[in-house]
Amino acid sequence: MKHNLQDTISLLARTPASLNALLRDLPETWTFRNEGENTWSVFDVVGHLIHGERTDWMPRTKIVLEFGETHPFESFDRWGHVRESQGKSLGWLLDEFARLRSDNLGELRALNLRQEDLERRGLHPALGIVTLSELLATWAIHDLTHLHQISRVMAHQYRGDVGPWSQYLGVLQCTGHSSP
Amino acid sequence: MKHNLQDTISLLARTPASLNALLRDLPETWTFRNEGENTWSVFDVVGHLIHGERTDWMPRTKIVLEFGETHPFESFDRWGHVRESQGKSLGWLLDEFARLRSDNLGELRALNLRQEDLERRGLHPALGIVTLSELLATWAIHDLTHLHQISRVMAHQYRGDVGPWSQYLGVLQCTGHSSP
Repeated sequence: MKHNLQDTISLLARTPASLNALLRDLPETWTFRNEGENTWSVFDVVGHLIHGERTDWMPRTKIVLEFGETHPFESFDRWGHVRESQGKSLGWLLDEFARLRSDNLGELRALNLRQEDLERRGLHPALGIVTLSELLATWAIHDLTHLHQISRVMAHQYRGDVGPWSQYLGVLQCTGHSSP
Repeated sequence: MKHNLQDTISLLARTPASLNALLRDLPETWTFRNEGENTWSVFDVVGHLIHGERTDWMPRTKIVLEFGETHPFESFDRWGHVRESQGKSLGWLLDEFARLRSDNLGELRALNLRQEDLERRGLHPALGIVTLSELLATWAIHDLTHLHQISRVMAHQYRGDVGPWSQYLGVLQCTGHSSP
């Protein structure tokens, strides 16, 4: 089955409101603690999502459409959000993520991509040849990867509080699948 | 550090709105597909959360407060939602979950639990002695376990669409940690 861009956009459009409903004004127990050294808190994850909106998804889409395989994407800085987020509140980050996502989806819709556009190829600096379709599908699954991470980081804060139920709680068995 | 009941309630209160923002009117690609035989779709997971509101968390809280360790909890039926959800829409389930959660948190707050109440012990039919504090902490982490599952089930639907990026997407490496 072919990747359905409308399904992808439907999900991308909902992530900011879902995170806002979950995280805004939540006690810092849940949002400012991480899983240990060199891991991310929920605050860090939202900063990372913002950094992706600024430097990854739509900039790479434009590179594919303009240059195809002749011009590799810039490498994405996985710690690029740290400086950008300094001194900001989680509420500010949630607003900024929602604003950037909305702007980016406006741009994406305005491109009116057709099937032949989705098949266009670009050059990833580490992965090699990729298609625009794969890039846009990845944008959505990247949201889900970080929703998965957020649930795990939050659950970790209660590891000592659930007693013998820990064995039934799948999220507490998850040790993560990527770094960080 | 002691389990902080206000932090727990803060999270429990946000889950319905967060799921609503993520899932309402989302294309069925995301919400009605599962991960294979005997696994759950997002629709099933929301039904399971409803079943927990009806039969698990507050009923068990009342059993601890009334009977202590002398009266074991009823076993929770992990497939109890299937019949209850039949013929319902996902929108209906999201509304019902929000309504039940709100009612349950109203009841919980009205109990005005003190630290000595949280230390009261109950009898789980499989796990043995547990405390009310552990039960209420588990309620919150159970939400996160299913948010973790929802992100994974949704991501699975795009497994074939992300091309070489799959190796960078942690949620696609997750095979789940509990059954189902």
